[in-house]
Amino acid sequence: MVNTRPAKTNSGRFFEDYSVGDVIAHAVPRTVSGGERALYHALYPARHALYSSDEFARRSGLPKSPLDDLAAFHVVFGKTVPDVSLNAVANLGYAEGRWLKPVYEGDTLRSESEVIGVKQNSNGKSGVVYVRTRGLNQRDETVMEYVRWVMVRKGNLDAPVPETVIPELQKVIPADQLVIPEGLDFSSYDFAASGESHRWGDYEIGETIDHVDGVTVEEAEHMMATRLWQNTAKVHFDTTARPDGTRLIYGGHVISMARALSFNGLANAQIIVGLNGGAHANPCLAGTTIRAWSEVLDKAETTAPGVGAIRLRLVATSGGAPFELKGEDGKYRPEVLLDLDYWALMPL
Amino acid sequence: MVNTRPAKTNSGRFFEDYSVGDVIAHAVPRTVSGGERALYHALYPARHALYSSDEFARRSGLPKSPLDDLAAFHVVFGKTVPDVSLNAVANLGYAEGRWLKPVYEGDTLRSESEVIGVKQNSNGKSGVVYVRTRGLNQRDETVMEYVRWVMVRKGNLDAPVPETVIPELQKVIPADQLVIPEGLDFSSYDFAASGESHRWGDYEIGETIDHVDGVTVEEAEHMMATRLWQNTAKVHFDTTARPDGTRLIYGGHVISMARALSFNGLANAQIIVGLNGGAHANPCLAGTTIRAWSEVLDKAETTAPGVGAIRLRLVATSGGAPFELKGEDGKYRPEVLLDLDYWALMPL
Amino acid sequence: MVNTRPAKTNSGRFFEDYSVGDVIAHAVPRTVSGGERALYHALYPARHALYSSDEFARRSGLPKSPLDDLAAFHVVFGKTVPDVSLNAVANLGYAEGRWLKPVYEGDTLRSESEVIGVKQNSNGKSGVVYVRTRGLNQRDETVMEYVRWVMVRKGNLDAPVPETVIPELQKVIPADQLVIPEGLDFSSYDFAASGESHRWGDYEIGETIDHVDGVTVEEAEHMMATRLWQNTAKVHFDTTARPDGTRLIYGGHVISMARALSFNGLANAQIIVGLNGGAHANPCLAGTTIRAWSEVLDKAETTAPGVGAIRLRLVATSGGAPFELKGEDGKYRPEVLLDLDYWALMPL
Repeated sequence: MVNTRPAKTNSGRFFEDYSVGDVIAHAVPRTVSGGERALYHALYPARHALYSSDEFARRSGLPKSPLDDLAAFHVVFGKTVPDVSLNAVANLGYAEGRWLKPVYEGDTLRSESEVIGVKQNSNGKSGVVYVRTRGLNQRDETVMEYVRWVMVRKGNLDAPVPETVIPELQKVIPADQLVIPEGLDFSSYDFAASGESHRWGDYEIGETIDHVDGVTVEEAEHMMATRLWQNTAKVHFDTTARPDGTRLIYGGHVISMARALSFNGLANAQIIVGLNGGAHANPCLAGTTIRAWSEVLDKAETTAPGVGAIRLRLVATSGGAPFELKGEDGKYRPEVLLDLDYWALMPL
Repeated sequence: MVNTRPAKTNSGRFFEDYSVGDVIAHAVPRTVSGGERALYHALYPARHALYSSDEFARRSGLPKSPLDDLAAFHVVFGKTVPDVSLNAVANLGYAEGRWLKPVYEGDTLRSESEVIGVKQNSNGKSGVVYVRTRGLNQRDETVMEYVRWVMVRKGNLDAPVPETVIPELQKVIPADQLVIPEGLDFSSYDFAASGESHRWGDYEIGETIDHVDGVTVEEAEHMMATRLWQNTAKVHFDTTARPDGTRLIYGGHVISMARALSFNGLANAQIIVGLNGGAHANPCLAGTTIRAWSEVLDKAETTAPGVGAIRLRLVATSGGAPFELKGEDGKYRPEVLLDLDYWALMPL
Repeated sequence: MVNTRPAKTNSGRFFEDYSVGDVIAHAVPRTVSGGERALYHALYPARHALYSSDEFARRSGLPKSPLDDLAAFHVVFGKTVPDVSLNAVANLGYAEGRWLKPVYEGDTLRSESEVIGVKQNSNGKSGVVYVRTRGLNQRDETVMEYVRWVMVRKGNLDAPVPETVIPELQKVIPADQLVIPEGLDFSSYDFAASGESHRWGDYEIGETIDHVDGVTVEEAEHMMATRLWQNTAKVHFDTTARPDGTRLIYGGHVISMARALSFNGLANAQIIVGLNGGAHANPCLAGTTIRAWSEVLDKAETTAPGVGAIRLRLVATSGGAPFELKGEDGKYRPEVLLDLDYWALMPL
């Protein structure tokens, strides 16, 4: 056997391979079906009625039940992994995430990312890359977008230091920039069908909610979820990829688990429309019992009939008391897995 | 952070919260698709041809292959958990279960339960609640119904003792009250496609069948199944919910596993139309190898062409010899997990 | 309880139950949907664009994205297990496998096998049975076919020794006998969407590719996969079926895992059209980290626009260095799980 050709496998991009202004078209478009919805419900205790029932969605002005917002996010995100985070040292943050169009069964999603910032670290061995990722459907409509920044290793330590560009990012998306799905109308919202009677007016800024339930996660589940989104990062699947033989759970799995758990207390926070920020505070491994709590950060009116916006902090933990986020040192407590800041739509 | 509002999470109903005549509309309707069918086949070794093949279903007079009867049951049942069994001490029994309409891809199911009986226990700390649950589709047609009784804790021990009402329940549904799916016709039944040649006339009352096969169950599987049916009972998911750190497998998972195993010997008992009774005799945990045996309890003719009814006892075990049900003390043997009494339809 | 009837469960066929010329119609037809596709993507890191995106498939001249070729194979294969391999001692080989028609959502598959060879072993206790299996859709079109031979126990050691018939099988399917899906056209192939730029002309005979990635497999995953294909072989599910309490992973699970891993380096080997041969070199158990490497064995032109054929060896391993297949004794090395020889279609 001879092997005279260069390796054909993807070794990923290194820090010096990103230039501000580059647009990367990510590979492997994906058509979604009822199968993705059923699997989403099997993998997470997802119960938000709009994503469970075509009838509930129609009563809310949509043609039918869309793919869960976070499932759409995972599909879009998963495609970026081979180009953005294969050599990433850390996933540093998210900002300016907006859902722009619901995704329906039969839609085909693809992703593209524009490099909007680079900053080499002072150690010369790595740098931070900022990308704005868009998910597009088969009609070239953008269904969602978000900014993400990651720390990436340099492949060639002698590569020149690029000019530092740090994008100006909104700390919080102003409510008037949130995009409400076309036709959405909560004026005849069915509170019996949704599972809770609490409406937008029943939540006040600063209020905290312990979502009470917990789910102990298994290897098979997080790997199935992560593969479903065609996320190929080795650390999620291969026990030989990390020195301690553990498989790191995809951060998005924790996001979806926490969001699903938040049904209990936030059943009417139906639709996620904005992602202001997020931190995967500590790694999560199989065997962890994931719990969640939320804090109401803000509220805003919208122009859609019967629809209010609520800004929530969603915190996933591996235990401990709820409502504890950071220690005296200002760092996340060890049991905090996720600190997510998002906008959702609720019935008034 | 302040928390001045009352808790928004569902703490479930207590014994004193049920009054005879109350009708509870359960939350979170669910639209089913081919995804649920594929997952049902991935989670259980389900092979009954009518639920596997559109062609087989059409040859049997149905428009296409319906959702498995037990999957429909699980969807309907799952919705009742937050209202009926969140504070349940024990699931005591089932009766008068009837499947009334097949459920097809695209149907949206919801559930409602009428309280038909209450009886406070002599200890004053709990009581038995009887509910008749109905599953309805998007046309408000009842697709199935069953009675279930559970023991529920009192939340307020000082709550007044309600008048005892114990519903009169049929021990066995008379065959002429079974509802045959409209159009069902087994007169050109394909015994090669179904997998076995045994027809209704080949089974005799008292006959027992060892289904031979076994499946060792895993945590990831029973949790995925239970979530798929949006059943939220903590004990199935959260290792911190029970003192011994184990997760109790949803009784319905055992029912579906045993029914699927019963294909081997009862491949032609295609459609479940009646649930006469059932007991979850012992808890089931991951690692258990589930086996099953059946006993023919009764047979009846029907008005549909080529269709006979057979009443079966389906017993799931964790091992031991088949056909052993109870010990000398009249109690279920420790290896018996399930004792189910149901009516199915077979080709004559 | 009495049991006067003969056992109704399937005890499988023994060597003496096969006669050359017999055609066995396998039971339980199966209609596939988007659910099977979603599950295939959840169970394997499958990313070949033609099976992921309707848009990509349409650009390639197909009406929409078909069911993954290997998923079609598993459905067809699974149906044969109760009739062919329930009493099999070993799965000895495959040959002359050809995919003849893509399978689409809504298609119903069934299988039939013709016995094309028998040879009793000299020990008189078992023999080799050769079958040619066909998968047919609801229009009675053959969607795929393959030859498989297994060693099967004799049930009655006194059964007469049949005349030995060993079919003449092609070592390799000639490229001009491969069937290209009707309408397939890679002349406007989208290399950005497919994930790699390497085209047919970029691969040379003898070239080897290390697919780099690995997946550590779990019990829940391989059981879900194997059940999804309605494969009932006990050894995959029942820890009491083998003396050491392990569950043997279905060989097809290893095939699909290795094929999915081969995306990294062979992303454009889109469609499998021929199976020349295959050996499950060593058993695979949960906990194994499956890796894969490929070798280009041959190349051929086709008559379809822009489409070339490539013959590949796909080797799955449980570790060790890539490109090592057999030891000095000519036997497969202990870490080799699978040695598969197949034809795929690539863009020129």
